[in-house]
Amino acid sequence: MDLAAGPVLDVLDLAGVVVFAASGALLAIRRGFDLIGLITLAAVTALGGGILRDLVIDAGVPFAFREARYPITALITALLVLPTQTWFDRLRRPVLVLDAAGLGLFSATGAVIASEAGLGAVAAVTLGVTTATGGGIARDVLAGEAPQVFRPDSVLYVIPATVGAIIVVVGHGADLSMSVVGTVGAALATAIRLAALRFGWRASLPRRWQ
Amino acid sequence: MDLAAGPVLDVLDLAGVVVFAASGALLAIRRGFDLIGLITLAAVTALGGGILRDLVIDAGVPFAFREARYPITALITALLVLPTQTWFDRLRRPVLVLDAAGLGLFSATGAVIASEAGLGAVAAVTLGVTTATGGGIARDVLAGEAPQVFRPDSVLYVIPATVGAIIVVVGHGADLSMSVVGTVGAALATAIRLAALRFGWRASLPRRWQ
Amino acid sequence: MDLAAGPVLDVLDLAGVVVFAASGALLAIRRGFDLIGLITLAAVTALGGGILRDLVIDAGVPFAFREARYPITALITALLVLPTQTWFDRLRRPVLVLDAAGLGLFSATGAVIASEAGLGAVAAVTLGVTTATGGGIARDVLAGEAPQVFRPDSVLYVIPATVGAIIVVVGHGADLSMSVVGTVGAALATAIRLAALRFGWRASLPRRWQ
Repeated sequence: MDLAAGPVLDVLDLAGVVVFAASGALLAIRRGFDLIGLITLAAVTALGGGILRDLVIDAGVPFAFREARYPITALITALLVLPTQTWFDRLRRPVLVLDAAGLGLFSATGAVIASEAGLGAVAAVTLGVTTATGGGIARDVLAGEAPQVFRPDSVLYVIPATVGAIIVVVGHGADLSMSVVGTVGAALATAIRLAALRFGWRASLPRRWQ
Repeated sequence: MDLAAGPVLDVLDLAGVVVFAASGALLAIRRGFDLIGLITLAAVTALGGGILRDLVIDAGVPFAFREARYPITALITALLVLPTQTWFDRLRRPVLVLDAAGLGLFSATGAVIASEAGLGAVAAVTLGVTTATGGGIARDVLAGEAPQVFRPDSVLYVIPATVGAIIVVVGHGADLSMSVVGTVGAALATAIRLAALRFGWRASLPRRWQ
Repeated sequence: MDLAAGPVLDVLDLAGVVVFAASGALLAIRRGFDLIGLITLAAVTALGGGILRDLVIDAGVPFAFREARYPITALITALLVLPTQTWFDRLRRPVLVLDAAGLGLFSATGAVIASEAGLGAVAAVTLGVTTATGGGIARDVLAGEAPQVFRPDSVLYVIPATVGAIIVVVGHGADLSMSVVGTVGAALATAIRLAALRFGWRASLPRRWQ
């Protein structure tokens, strides 16, 4: 996939793995799990969405099992979170920014990979969103919590990813460069997520329909 | 698959998606989830079983990601459930009948697809049942509830689907027409489910073994 | 896979299915589920890890759906657990030994299958561990409990499996006989698990980092 070819994107991609793995590890600590829970939740959060995407597009062994740097990055992150977890509280804002960047990047790369695998527009958008958010949903289910992105007080997360994936799929339909379109989609998704955090945008159901 | 070729069956198939999606959306509302939870639970309930079946039979990209009408039907249903949810309470009986029809149809088509993919009898029955009930189990797990079909007070649901799938697999072994056998299997599964609802048939464990 | 070719290993393999299926069935009984919950939890516990492994290595229809003796063994075990469940309490030690044997065997065979499918070392270890422990994690999630292997008071389970899988992968890299290496890996994993049970080894997080 040409989008991931650039070294800048490679770094961002692994930064996404680090941030997502850290969110899994922190949840494991909060739930009182042991070392195995820590590592498993970190790996599932960082890699689960991409594995599901790769199983669906039927392109052989999933990426996370072909490129050892992905699981190794998740493993190292999980172990480093233990002695540094207080930083994550103090660095809450930078972590949220990195998480937004991971969200945007994963939704865009997911949609690019699905489009280039020949999937239709609806499926490619769905898989872009799945790549970005599926790991976090699996993390919450494994930890025995209702998925964070379903909660009525959660700030927009899936919708920015959807916008990013739609940009990519529209651009793919218009035969534009996937590098350009992927970058624009990732940036826009990240920006919408950051704006949602800043302004508290939510997608709770109208009160009269609850 | 010739079973799905007829327009009547196409309509029934999408009716199954609508009813299953509605059951996911209604659970999301009851759990107080937001718009994302509503759409995700609707899609997982309606499409999860079929996606799992298609991953197992290894026949390329799952149906739900190749035919956009499936996710789009689930999405529209989820959004329409919001303003119409009181109907579902009032129309409880018709909804249960439609759900029974979806159960029968999905178990029969699942078993046909698995048999035609060359799977053995036990595997084809398992996948027929998975197609019909896997989405509902995934729905309950995502919502943080024990799967409804496991509860001792639940009326027979998986067993009617199993009977429908067995009919199909036996008919496939006897080289009968899959259209006929699929229709008979779907009808019988639906009938058993409706009878179970009418007469309160359960599969709870014998008291002395609990 | 030559490891499973021997009749001794075939017997051990099915013994693993029996013990894992029984653990699923017993949890279903403890949670008050019905017959469907009993059978489903038994099958998921015994077969879930191997199915996930086979989906990831992309080698066609998963083993558990090609060899009917696997689901049939799980089904019969589930039904036999009902009238014999008090034995499992009385026979707690033999059951734990069999479970340790199943853990060792599944981690070794999983790593052999993944290595022979051409996966890298990290992926093959991960899949060996997934084969041995994935079913139990799926069992706990379906039953609405935090995965047992994540709990801080749980005795080492995943780590012995990891050691067994590493032995296999190192042996595969050194081009040793997979039969020998698989047997050594399985035996060592089983021995470490039994030692952990005997001496109460845990992997809880250091208190100052909780």
